[in-house]
Amino acid sequence: MGYGNLARGVESAVLSSGDMVLKAVFTRRDPSSVRTRSGVKVLGASRAGEYRDEIDVMVLCGGSAADLPEQTPRAAAMFDVVDSFDTHARIEEHFRRVDESARAGGHAALIACGWDPGLFSMQRMLSAAVLPRGKDYTFWGRGVSQGHSDAVRRIPGVRDARQYTVPVPEAVEAVRAGNAPLLSVRQKHTRECYVVLEEGADPEAVREAIVSMPHYFSDYDTTVHFITAEEMERDHREMPHGGFVIRSGVTGMAGKHRQLIEFSLKLDSNPEFTGSVLAACARAVYRKRRAGNVGCFTMADVTLAELSEKTGKELRELL
Amino acid sequence: MGYGNLARGVESAVLSSGDMVLKAVFTRRDPSSVRTRSGVKVLGASRAGEYRDEIDVMVLCGGSAADLPEQTPRAAAMFDVVDSFDTHARIEEHFRRVDESARAGGHAALIACGWDPGLFSMQRMLSAAVLPRGKDYTFWGRGVSQGHSDAVRRIPGVRDARQYTVPVPEAVEAVRAGNAPLLSVRQKHTRECYVVLEEGADPEAVREAIVSMPHYFSDYDTTVHFITAEEMERDHREMPHGGFVIRSGVTGMAGKHRQLIEFSLKLDSNPEFTGSVLAACARAVYRKRRAGNVGCFTMADVTLAELSEKTGKELRELL
Repeated sequence: MGYGNLARGVESAVLSSGDMVLKAVFTRRDPSSVRTRSGVKVLGASRAGEYRDEIDVMVLCGGSAADLPEQTPRAAAMFDVVDSFDTHARIEEHFRRVDESARAGGHAALIACGWDPGLFSMQRMLSAAVLPRGKDYTFWGRGVSQGHSDAVRRIPGVRDARQYTVPVPEAVEAVRAGNAPLLSVRQKHTRECYVVLEEGADPEAVREAIVSMPHYFSDYDTTVHFITAEEMERDHREMPHGGFVIRSGVTGMAGKHRQLIEFSLKLDSNPEFTGSVLAACARAVYRKRRAGNVGCFTMADVTLAELSEKTGKELRELL
Repeated sequence: MGYGNLARGVESAVLSSGDMVLKAVFTRRDPSSVRTRSGVKVLGASRAGEYRDEIDVMVLCGGSAADLPEQTPRAAAMFDVVDSFDTHARIEEHFRRVDESARAGGHAALIACGWDPGLFSMQRMLSAAVLPRGKDYTFWGRGVSQGHSDAVRRIPGVRDARQYTVPVPEAVEAVRAGNAPLLSVRQKHTRECYVVLEEGADPEAVREAIVSMPHYFSDYDTTVHFITAEEMERDHREMPHGGFVIRSGVTGMAGKHRQLIEFSLKLDSNPEFTGSVLAACARAVYRKRRAGNVGCFTMADVTLAELSEKTGKELRELL
């Protein structure tokens, strides 16, 4: 459902899996205006109901702000579904609404899939379960933040913008050294903005508007670079991202042995990677439902065997 | 069951969890000769059956070569059990025997818990599910290998020995750079041995016996250091370990975007960390059984919610 960057990531992930087939793309746009990369058919969103019997899992590729809070509960009444709802603070609320609707329809839903929330959440759960005496650190980047890029684009005088979130190397090193430091927001990440100005805009005013913007930039050290539209197109078209989840803990009677668990991602393409996670989650929700489970689930409730294309025997023998 | 290094790791992990109580230690030694760190009572292994109703989970802390192949199936007939069976090539065979016995007794068993197999297996399953087009790399160390240390100790003229497995930094860097290199056994790890000789032993003969030992050392570049018993006691008492599991994959229609998933451990104490994993697994197998599951399971079958002390709602809200 939907055909933006994330949906194209799901499309190519499904094509490279051995046990899934992409049946159709549904869009709220005029279907004749959408051309899929794989050539799979495009249908109007309102026709989804006609495909109930042909579709095992509906992957919802809309945004968390406006689309998914409505779309996921509605779709879960009719299909087994997967979404990438990523507003951390509202996951419990979203969960409750999707759970109610999925139970009413006898379906299974897997929400908040992706890498944060998603794989990063899994690592936080795993490492906290193993090291209860410890502290979590999450660093994001170096990578493009869509939300922050959009915030800069809304400033008068800005024609285009790209914002990179960058972990502070000294902070990462201090955590990896097992020192379990206390770190402020400013000490963990810096922000880098690349901005194409409208003709006649005042760079100093734009710079000031960015670095002083509350919530988004005022708590960070932010660097602003003004570039041309050609440079933007040449150097900032890709959507790399990544990050680290580190748990720094201790074990033993005296708590004197330091233990460090780190999970990191280095991604050339954020939407293709997130799409790949959604595809694996589609497999998991299919299996959950076939095993008789209904209602809403998160990555906390999924087994690795459910996510994997391999059989249990293959997993035990190979991995 | 058992009270060696691993069991002491489990003991301190159970004490630092909020939802588990250590009831007893069972030993095949004379119980009066064993003094636990926590003061928990020590009983003869043959008395375990008397405690069936008092014990939710029996954690088997024996070795994979001689103990667990017999112990786990026997115990699984009577208790819900966890073990750290780590002979990768025989996991499927162990699984079948434990599964049969656990089903017959109506119990649940979780085997091959630890970090490799265990957490590393989980990461291989997760990252292969997300990046089917990719390649896995596992590096171990820098850390003490018990099996290799024992092999050196069996050489005539050796009084004591400690073997460290060391990843080759250039190999790790090439993998992290996303180059997906082909690496031979020799290119991935080196081996370092610290040896205390018996009086009068010939160092050159011992060195030659080590580096040419088939399976253990002949495929590696091995360095041998001769040290005194005092240096061994001073510098090599701890059991650090660690390692990395890296999946290097591609996504997208043309497969041109490189994606890297890395999981790494840096452990001051291998047995305390492995014991912490077993404690979390004891929680998981307890929950599996309470939810009506019997038979044998591995980390492929466990959810993060089952491993975690927190409730589902807490996990969704916090992690």
